[in-house]
Amino acid sequence: MLTLYHCVSARSFRPLWALEELGLPYQLKMLPFPPRALAREFLSVNPLGTVPALIDGELCMTESAAICQYLAARNGNARLDVAPDEPAYGAYLNWLHHGEATLTFPQTLVLRYGRLESPERLQPQVVEDYSRWFLARLRAVDAVVANREFLCADRFTAADISVGYALMLADYLGMGDRFSEAVRGYWQRLQQRDGFLRAMQAQEKAALAQGVPTIPAPLTGSR
Amino acid sequence: MLTLYHCVSARSFRPLWALEELGLPYQLKMLPFPPRALAREFLSVNPLGTVPALIDGELCMTESAAICQYLAARNGNARLDVAPDEPAYGAYLNWLHHGEATLTFPQTLVLRYGRLESPERLQPQVVEDYSRWFLARLRAVDAVVANREFLCADRFTAADISVGYALMLADYLGMGDRFSEAVRGYWQRLQQRDGFLRAMQAQEKAALAQGVPTIPAPLTGSR
Repeated sequence: MLTLYHCVSARSFRPLWALEELGLPYQLKMLPFPPRALAREFLSVNPLGTVPALIDGELCMTESAAICQYLAARNGNARLDVAPDEPAYGAYLNWLHHGEATLTFPQTLVLRYGRLESPERLQPQVVEDYSRWFLARLRAVDAVVANREFLCADRFTAADISVGYALMLADYLGMGDRFSEAVRGYWQRLQQRDGFLRAMQAQEKAALAQGVPTIPAPLTGSR
Repeated sequence: MLTLYHCVSARSFRPLWALEELGLPYQLKMLPFPPRALAREFLSVNPLGTVPALIDGELCMTESAAICQYLAARNGNARLDVAPDEPAYGAYLNWLHHGEATLTFPQTLVLRYGRLESPERLQPQVVEDYSRWFLARLRAVDAVVANREFLCADRFTAADISVGYALMLADYLGMGDRFSEAVRGYWQRLQQRDGFLRAMQAQEKAALAQGVPTIPAPLTGSR
């Protein structure tokens, strides 16, 4: 049995979405955000204090895009994966990494220095620098989804989950209205998927059942 | 023939190192740093203006850790890859992503707001925040290499290249003396590899031949 540690709408939404797309059985453990401060016992599971943490027997994984690739590759018949011998393999790997390293990390700066820090430590310059940085990088997504339904391989893959979460986070941070028309359409298509909707419902249901606030992690500390 | 666009000791060192470990033929195109400002013609290759860019026929990849995984998987007999059916597969993917998303991105903030920005835009608080952030995250590396030669699978893999470059960058940024003994020992082992040394020589030779400064990108704009 897989166990996923998750905060509502944090990066750990990626593996939750992948689990629902794949139809795998799993246990969902909800944590208040930020867990490092509010759920100290979680440090015995993941000493870094970050979500996600996916437990699969002896294995503990902490990188959300890596977990999506792992689940997809180990459950290949669902075709969320792209195999090394497929022509789209390189693009698949590139988008998997791009979604997190290039499109999500900059947004964590917008979040931290725009909302989470105490007032005297807020940094409007950094918020502006990395909002622009994120939106500029999004042009690579725009160039692809202007002509295609999904990022690669002519089907929905784990790469769409990786990039899709970056769009979800941007939406929470108020940057959704700065998406191009093509990116907005792509993000709307993703949100209409059954797997996405099931993941949204699963986190709300689990949060209520486990007595954890249902407010999305990116909106914590909103002013 | 593979073509790699590269700036001396930038993230694009990862694929260069992988190419040398794998013994693959490749063409190395050196760019001054930052290419977005100093090599505008490169935007026709990669509109994002970032290195690396790896060209393999029709394919252009831009994420350094993804390229290492791609090269490793497509050239499996060198065993830089870990296959989905190996027990270490999950750890391999996690370290591949961790090296870039968790261990390298925070350092780009230290670099940007400590060195690259104009004096009035430097941000000592951000430099301090993300130096501490990086060093705290490095504890997960320490926990593994205190007892093992490499990160996973009991052999050198592309995951060591991903994390190894984060250590190289930290060393350039003056954080090497804050490594734990185990991390310092691991980083020394990596630097002694033939593949690493060949990659270092290849970039210097190509920079000299192509009339590009040999100063490492992370030291550009040092004050």
